[in-house]
Amino acid sequence: MKRRDFVAGTLFAAGMSACDTQNPAEEINLPVSQDIFEWNMVTSWPPGLPGLGIGATNFAKRAEKASGGRLKIKVFAGGELVPPLEVFDAVSRGTVQMGHDSSYYHRGKVAAAPYYTTVPFGLNLNEMNAWLYYGDGLDLWHELYAPFNLVPFPVGNTGVQMLGWFNKKIQTINDLSGMKIRMPGLGGEIMQRAGAIQVTVPGSEIFTSLKTGVVDAAEWVGPYNDIALGLHKAARYYYYPGFHEPGPNIECIINKTAWNTLPEDLQEIVRVVSQACNLDMTSEYMWGNAIALDQLKMDPNVELIQLPQEVFDELRMHSIEAINDLSQKDDWAKKIEQSISNFMKKSSANQKITELAYLNMRINNT
Amino acid sequence: MKRRDFVAGTLFAAGMSACDTQNPAEEINLPVSQDIFEWNMVTSWPPGLPGLGIGATNFAKRAEKASGGRLKIKVFAGGELVPPLEVFDAVSRGTVQMGHDSSYYHRGKVAAAPYYTTVPFGLNLNEMNAWLYYGDGLDLWHELYAPFNLVPFPVGNTGVQMLGWFNKKIQTINDLSGMKIRMPGLGGEIMQRAGAIQVTVPGSEIFTSLKTGVVDAAEWVGPYNDIALGLHKAARYYYYPGFHEPGPNIECIINKTAWNTLPEDLQEIVRVVSQACNLDMTSEYMWGNAIALDQLKMDPNVELIQLPQEVFDELRMHSIEAINDLSQKDDWAKKIEQSISNFMKKSSANQKITELAYLNMRINNT
Repeated sequence: MKRRDFVAGTLFAAGMSACDTQNPAEEINLPVSQDIFEWNMVTSWPPGLPGLGIGATNFAKRAEKASGGRLKIKVFAGGELVPPLEVFDAVSRGTVQMGHDSSYYHRGKVAAAPYYTTVPFGLNLNEMNAWLYYGDGLDLWHELYAPFNLVPFPVGNTGVQMLGWFNKKIQTINDLSGMKIRMPGLGGEIMQRAGAIQVTVPGSEIFTSLKTGVVDAAEWVGPYNDIALGLHKAARYYYYPGFHEPGPNIECIINKTAWNTLPEDLQEIVRVVSQACNLDMTSEYMWGNAIALDQLKMDPNVELIQLPQEVFDELRMHSIEAINDLSQKDDWAKKIEQSISNFMKKSSANQKITELAYLNMRINNT
Repeated sequence: MKRRDFVAGTLFAAGMSACDTQNPAEEINLPVSQDIFEWNMVTSWPPGLPGLGIGATNFAKRAEKASGGRLKIKVFAGGELVPPLEVFDAVSRGTVQMGHDSSYYHRGKVAAAPYYTTVPFGLNLNEMNAWLYYGDGLDLWHELYAPFNLVPFPVGNTGVQMLGWFNKKIQTINDLSGMKIRMPGLGGEIMQRAGAIQVTVPGSEIFTSLKTGVVDAAEWVGPYNDIALGLHKAARYYYYPGFHEPGPNIECIINKTAWNTLPEDLQEIVRVVSQACNLDMTSEYMWGNAIALDQLKMDPNVELIQLPQEVFDELRMHSIEAINDLSQKDDWAKKIEQSISNFMKKSSANQKITELAYLNMRINNT
């Protein structure tokens, strides 16, 4: 092992870079700071929620371990410290240092924010990450949140969600007329444009609302999360795919004043842990959904139904209108929409001959 | 900011955990070690190769930054320190501390190793990660490599590759008969079972071999890497999808003796950086392939052709035979194959109603 003890105070790392042509090192001052940061992270999730909630806890554990205990993050479930939908404000004000939520919860304050969760008929998870990390997605996001004194990072993705649980069938677009549906965000707005009635119901009340007919249909996430809420006992038809949430990214937001107090190594630990957690949550969903779906398929009271292509296409027309309206009202939305659609056109051609062609040939013919 | 200066020598982090119910902290000894580790990483990649090579360099940069300069990794291109295909041996022996390569390069030594790159008709990238991080994939891998004194981590994935560049068309399985094809690993073995002749050609010589007719066909990776080698100027037919490499995982291997010298925080930094780099490389490929394919589509001398489903299915029969043979010869291969196929059955059902259904509806109807 080429191991040497450190001599305090020397610019050892910078000295090393002279003999290293492949990795031009930045100048790093050793020793590393021993300062301890005790941060609070508020989230929008029920305690221990699989996927989303576990992702927040994992973030804290891994940041603490990777920092040797110098970055200690205490995680609060939604409502424990601030209400689930007020994470953005609490972190922006500096009441807490960090938040873990979905950007589309604060579209009232930042009209373009839903682009950083997911938009109907938009990017899937792999495309979303490509755009964030290799397109200008992440840079634009940092700019978008700067006026709120926030630094955002992607920390997870559920993959394509399910359209949801329905007690009525959708055979044509007309079947949506008057249907009371729990679907937040742009998806719900599109359903409304198609004649449905958008009803606001917190996650914890979906089961009862469906069961008692307060709503005719409700979306939550997918098999892994839905089975935990017992939604398969409240409605019969499980529709797919979730055109409204094709690749929902989860956000971690950090108060910028707090961020600036972190030494460079801890800032990098936060960046790296965010990206690791992003993949980790996706993997948890891919695994958990496959297992949960397998259970649901054995339930004789559950019918899996694909949304008819004609209905999908008509909803897409409504979506194009909704997104055009948003672009006209908001310059940021326009800018981000342009960036995404430039990429999506090229990406569709690529997905078609790779992931899509392969899965079609592997799955549809077995 | 809740920031406190550290008092050297106290078990500060452990003390904190008393008031933290959600994140039971492990006992961490502060201050963090200031020891510096200078490691060498050998790779199988040409210098600066997009995707694979950039992934290795990124790993080193991020580990150095996140560790505050305490873990310095010098990256060597294939052949600089050891030949590209001898990374496994060099790290196993302890000649260097780390390697960055593909596990299927050493299937001569570890018959089950290809499972940790990709196997024909197997998992795609999202499924591969689900199995690694949430199934028993990663644990089995650590067991498999333990006798070689190696600790492995996933550090990237190219996504579904292209089948490759062909100067002859494949209309039926008989067209493969006598075709000289550059396709390493199990994919090439399957082509051979179908009548083709597997030819070994290093990456750097693919262009010339194709151009001069030494081979009739050759696979490399996908548009992003292939365009850089100029393969579109050496063959006309660009076949898809790459049934032989549906979700190739890239490995980082660490000499276990070296690994054991790292303090816990640096070990966690390596784990986290690996997982972050895994997603990062995938994102680079998703982005780079979309851009490169767009360029290739404008080239009148390139024809994109989908492998006929009948040929795909016949090759799958050969693949099942090849994998059965491997399982009979090697207990590890049998164990891993079982673990993967249990998951893949459930995962196919899940992919079908999520990623696949969505992409089909979004892409095929536009």
